[in-house]
Amino acid sequence: MIEDKNQQRTSLENLGEFGLIDHLTKNFDIKHKSTVKGIGDDAAVLDFKSKKIVVTTDLLIENVHFDLSYMPLKHLGYKAIMVNLSDVFAMNANATQVTVSIAVSNRFSLEALEDLYAGIETAAKIYNIDVVGGDTTSSTTGLIISVTAIGELNEEDIVYRNGAKPNDLLVVTGDLGAAYMGLQVLEREKEVFKVNPQNQPDLDLYSYIIERQLKPEARQDIVKLLKDLDVKPTSMIDISDGLSSEIIHICKQSKVGCDLYENKIPLDPQVISTCEEFKIDSTTIALNGGEDYELLMTISQEDFPKIKANPNLTVIGFITEESRGMHLVTRGESRIPLIAKGWNSLSDQE
Amino acid sequence: MIEDKNQQRTSLENLGEFGLIDHLTKNFDIKHKSTVKGIGDDAAVLDFKSKKIVVTTDLLIENVHFDLSYMPLKHLGYKAIMVNLSDVFAMNANATQVTVSIAVSNRFSLEALEDLYAGIETAAKIYNIDVVGGDTTSSTTGLIISVTAIGELNEEDIVYRNGAKPNDLLVVTGDLGAAYMGLQVLEREKEVFKVNPQNQPDLDLYSYIIERQLKPEARQDIVKLLKDLDVKPTSMIDISDGLSSEIIHICKQSKVGCDLYENKIPLDPQVISTCEEFKIDSTTIALNGGEDYELLMTISQEDFPKIKANPNLTVIGFITEESRGMHLVTRGESRIPLIAKGWNSLSDQE
Repeated sequence: MIEDKNQQRTSLENLGEFGLIDHLTKNFDIKHKSTVKGIGDDAAVLDFKSKKIVVTTDLLIENVHFDLSYMPLKHLGYKAIMVNLSDVFAMNANATQVTVSIAVSNRFSLEALEDLYAGIETAAKIYNIDVVGGDTTSSTTGLIISVTAIGELNEEDIVYRNGAKPNDLLVVTGDLGAAYMGLQVLEREKEVFKVNPQNQPDLDLYSYIIERQLKPEARQDIVKLLKDLDVKPTSMIDISDGLSSEIIHICKQSKVGCDLYENKIPLDPQVISTCEEFKIDSTTIALNGGEDYELLMTISQEDFPKIKANPNLTVIGFITEESRGMHLVTRGESRIPLIAKGWNSLSDQE
Repeated sequence: MIEDKNQQRTSLENLGEFGLIDHLTKNFDIKHKSTVKGIGDDAAVLDFKSKKIVVTTDLLIENVHFDLSYMPLKHLGYKAIMVNLSDVFAMNANATQVTVSIAVSNRFSLEALEDLYAGIETAAKIYNIDVVGGDTTSSTTGLIISVTAIGELNEEDIVYRNGAKPNDLLVVTGDLGAAYMGLQVLEREKEVFKVNPQNQPDLDLYSYIIERQLKPEARQDIVKLLKDLDVKPTSMIDISDGLSSEIIHICKQSKVGCDLYENKIPLDPQVISTCEEFKIDSTTIALNGGEDYELLMTISQEDFPKIKANPNLTVIGFITEESRGMHLVTRGESRIPLIAKGWNSLSDQE
């Protein structure tokens, strides 16, 4: 559909595992002093001296997390890195290294994997991270990508999920729901394409939401911004499963409640118009859509003057005592309990 | 075949991703001071102070790396950890943490995953490592396990693949080829079982080689032994793809050649008898069989007195100038070039 299928096609079989790793990673350079040894031994060797390190990992499975009929491989490589960096930034850390393992079936050509790694390389360049290891193996079916990301920070900068206090402000970066609505548009176009392969879709109206789905950016800029503003959040989490489930994580781990204001949730105009077109409630999408990769944090009221003028940060509610519970305050001013529908990849499966 | 199929069966669908992770990891305790924060946030937080850290990762895919018709899930969980720890020990490091991600289809029950995690927990206990993170997601087909292992060591203790020097001794731990022959026996029994499911196989004759396949141990003891003997290898690698391909890795990266003596390669009597039964040459199996998870190292001749009496270490050859090439010296004293057939999971696929 989007991908150009008329490419040269080199079979993987004769290249072998060692040749393949060497080939795919030969352009990857080392940027960090903390990377003592990258790809090429039994393990990478890292040196963080007095810094703390953070480690996070995610698995991406074809036809569960992505659909190659509309996800170009280069974008997929980029997104696989973003998904993991987002978790590093949610600790308020600086991302430094990743390992990338892939399993592929023989239906993938060398050129296809080169596209995937071009996306990984682009992400590594833009986000200044070293690719220090990985594993390349065969799969009996689709494509599987496993990324582990490592970051560094000083002890005093670590932000956990469990530090929110009553009266803290609930703050979110960027806008929400776009990635999910982008997915709805792509799914609809896939169905149209099945019926009429000659149809050339005009997706200009949906450019922002499709980009949010296919090429999300992790909020490295926010970690720097918070430092520049001299604000340390009391808690932080990245929004991968939808705002609602992430708020619940923070509240449960911090033993607090919250009031979230529906009319404060930041939505892009394209999300609003596409929700109208699909006859879906935009608040439901922002709460449960997932894959936004924005950051949700709580900030002490004292820090409000430092953040109030910043277009990247939106106050969407405040933290309460645990006994008050977790609520959405609707536009009609009724208080309804927050539920984590989230994006549950296990129950989504059937 | 080996696994007990008559178990309680709780469906994964209603449990959800968060419930599943919590449930499976609730018994995992933290043993290392370097683990500041384990499972439960966007990322684990680690603190290695002045130590260097090593990071390695591996993907295990159902029907590529394991066959559940004879691999009990508990053993599989154990083996998934061993495969990664082996790489940590091959750097001469102390393994400290792992992350474990799994993707499962709905054909797996909660009880099946509990078995898998029981194996992971057993490995973590015995090898004194902390499970600090992971991801649990659905798969459209089989079981996928991705493990990242982390270890620590002092800078002066790091052993790379590239430090072998001419006249160094080529030394291997344990014995070789058993895991591969264990696999051959299990594959044969699987075929017998297909024809006659009532057949109760007598596998006593093959107990050692089957255990080497189903429940390998990574050589943590060797890292300690080398320290106790005050021996630092000049190079080291773990034997996952077969002796031949690992020797070639060391020689290529160290820019040296080698003479490997066929009559010195350590073989267990069960490997020899099973090779005879299967009419396979045991040297070929030791060279190319794979999955031994022993360590191959090069040691300076000066250190020979320290290792010569040790039953865990066998001298199998010596390093030569690069121009001499890499050779196997056969029992008949002819010198034939070493070739890396190895265990190539990409070309093995078809």
